[in-house]
Amino acid sequence: MKQPVRIAVTGAAGNISYSLLFKIAAGEMLGADQPVILQLVEIPQAMDKLRGVAMELEDCSFPLIHGITLHDNPFDGFKGVHYAMLVGARPRSKGMERADLLEANAAIFSEQGKALNEVANRDVKALVIGNPANTNCLILSRNAPDLNPSQFCAMTRLDHNRSQGILGNKLGVNPSDIDGVVVWGNHSPTMYPDLHNATVLGGESVIDQVDEDWYKTEFTPRIQKRGAEIIEWRGLSSAASAAQAGLDHMRDWALGSEGKIVSMGIISDGSYGVAKGIYYSFPCICEFGSYQIIKDLEVNEYGQAMMKKTEQELLEEKAAVDHLLPAETAESRENLKTSTDGQTQFDNGIDAASAYYKADRIC
Amino acid sequence: MKQPVRIAVTGAAGNISYSLLFKIAAGEMLGADQPVILQLVEIPQAMDKLRGVAMELEDCSFPLIHGITLHDNPFDGFKGVHYAMLVGARPRSKGMERADLLEANAAIFSEQGKALNEVANRDVKALVIGNPANTNCLILSRNAPDLNPSQFCAMTRLDHNRSQGILGNKLGVNPSDIDGVVVWGNHSPTMYPDLHNATVLGGESVIDQVDEDWYKTEFTPRIQKRGAEIIEWRGLSSAASAAQAGLDHMRDWALGSEGKIVSMGIISDGSYGVAKGIYYSFPCICEFGSYQIIKDLEVNEYGQAMMKKTEQELLEEKAAVDHLLPAETAESRENLKTSTDGQTQFDNGIDAASAYYKADRIC
Repeated sequence: MKQPVRIAVTGAAGNISYSLLFKIAAGEMLGADQPVILQLVEIPQAMDKLRGVAMELEDCSFPLIHGITLHDNPFDGFKGVHYAMLVGARPRSKGMERADLLEANAAIFSEQGKALNEVANRDVKALVIGNPANTNCLILSRNAPDLNPSQFCAMTRLDHNRSQGILGNKLGVNPSDIDGVVVWGNHSPTMYPDLHNATVLGGESVIDQVDEDWYKTEFTPRIQKRGAEIIEWRGLSSAASAAQAGLDHMRDWALGSEGKIVSMGIISDGSYGVAKGIYYSFPCICEFGSYQIIKDLEVNEYGQAMMKKTEQELLEEKAAVDHLLPAETAESRENLKTSTDGQTQFDNGIDAASAYYKADRIC
Repeated sequence: MKQPVRIAVTGAAGNISYSLLFKIAAGEMLGADQPVILQLVEIPQAMDKLRGVAMELEDCSFPLIHGITLHDNPFDGFKGVHYAMLVGARPRSKGMERADLLEANAAIFSEQGKALNEVANRDVKALVIGNPANTNCLILSRNAPDLNPSQFCAMTRLDHNRSQGILGNKLGVNPSDIDGVVVWGNHSPTMYPDLHNATVLGGESVIDQVDEDWYKTEFTPRIQKRGAEIIEWRGLSSAASAAQAGLDHMRDWALGSEGKIVSMGIISDGSYGVAKGIYYSFPCICEFGSYQIIKDLEVNEYGQAMMKKTEQELLEEKAAVDHLLPAETAESRENLKTSTDGQTQFDNGIDAASAYYKADRIC
């Protein structure tokens, strides 16, 4: 049996975590041979509820759980963690403007970034699930200057999985037989679900099998607004599928995507002409605990316009919170070069993803 | 890849199923190489919500799901199923007496029993999770005269897991290192969680390591009323741990318990002096898709009194619904002898469990 790894989950008493935790504990994320210590973080008002969740985890008699700790602040909760799944976020309440929402979440993710910077394992992998995920991730990363921006991701895997699942159903094939779906940009209705490089069983092109009109006027808006569609039918938000996507993202990041392309919201290194310094969803392949952007996909004119639009939104979100971000100093960039045992070659955002490679990170 | 199996889940839009379905779909129940067709059953009023759940399952892009069908009645929903997980039940509403509750559920489980009898695969394994589970299971089975009573179980695995988990925590050992915990009788506050045969790592006796007073006055009532304790802390009932227990029960029943003792609510064959013809939780070992009662455990005087009390409650529940049960005719028993390809030697409840053996049931 391996040594246990520490996994922090925020918003741990919420609905997404209620699906997520019992799957992590069963070994779905890191494998049936990987013991875990769960470090559950909530706001002080939710600690009773969180205790109930922890009792239920105890009641499942999971062999992989080697410990559960409960925390009402991230500085305790993130101590020594190898994985951080940041589920908790401030939802939009009535009368709240977009700027208010961004600011309310900036406060949460600034604190959590500082906490990760201070107390997490130096090789921590952090995934932001709470919305607005991409900009929350930016805030998180910028507040953790001693960690590499490539150690942070925003979740667009739900959009990726949705695209693959709905497409599989449309084509009458198993979703796992489809490869090359890409969701570009922001986890928001501006995202661009791109089927132009997708194939079935490595052969037949997907885009040739679907009607262009269906793709542009049915499929695309459906993926972009799928969350609202689920709420309409189920009366509740899509907690279980979000949890599954978070788990898929982390599993592939840690254990590899087996040669398959997955969509991940990562720090832009300028690939495909996307502005550097924002967290943008790119096509990636994961191997040895690291991800690499696939750089040679063709993007047609339609796609370029779609990619630009969602990039624009992310730049606007960044501008809205810019006054809250710590300055990016030459000094903080200098730190990055040496922060993870000198193995990280990160320089000013360029090739952050491909530079971050460490095969022995989880042992 | 194996041929897909059909799994029916009732109450499929409810909270337990919301945890259960996404675990089945990920392969936690029948393995990562076993494709499944999910046949989801709900009451007509919950079909919209159910559609939302099905959409989320689609959105997870699970490779193992080979089909999802939605049904508002069990005669459609149970067609050809190899596994039936009966989660939906009528909960006790305000002012409802115990007898009213039993009768309301009798109506549901009578219909579902008839449906299983008529349309399910002849080798179906049915697990009742909805409460009062043991007596619901009796009603179900009695309404399915062409199926063997040993094809039906009432879930006491949650109580079993809770005992093991809480004990592991108390002793500071991994719950999976404990074997021999038994929960006897009814899934109700009369259940008897028995530690007298439990050991750690096959060696040291558990009962010697815990204080008798703690065992009788703290541990036992805690297990018996754990559901209420969870509700108190979490504000909601223990859906995720119930789902996990249902999954554990089915997995062990189908794939084997690897030599470990598990508690299962099964048709009493008179073992340990328990009245025949009620569904009572016994210590079992599962192998080759079948379960066997472990018959040689020692039960002390205290234990015998505890076992009697919970048996008494089950006999009272049976008496309360007896007028609703179809008569057990010699003819219906005759059917049993030949119902599953002549391989079943079931006779009047005696040795039903051990007689039910068919190694090639899932292919």
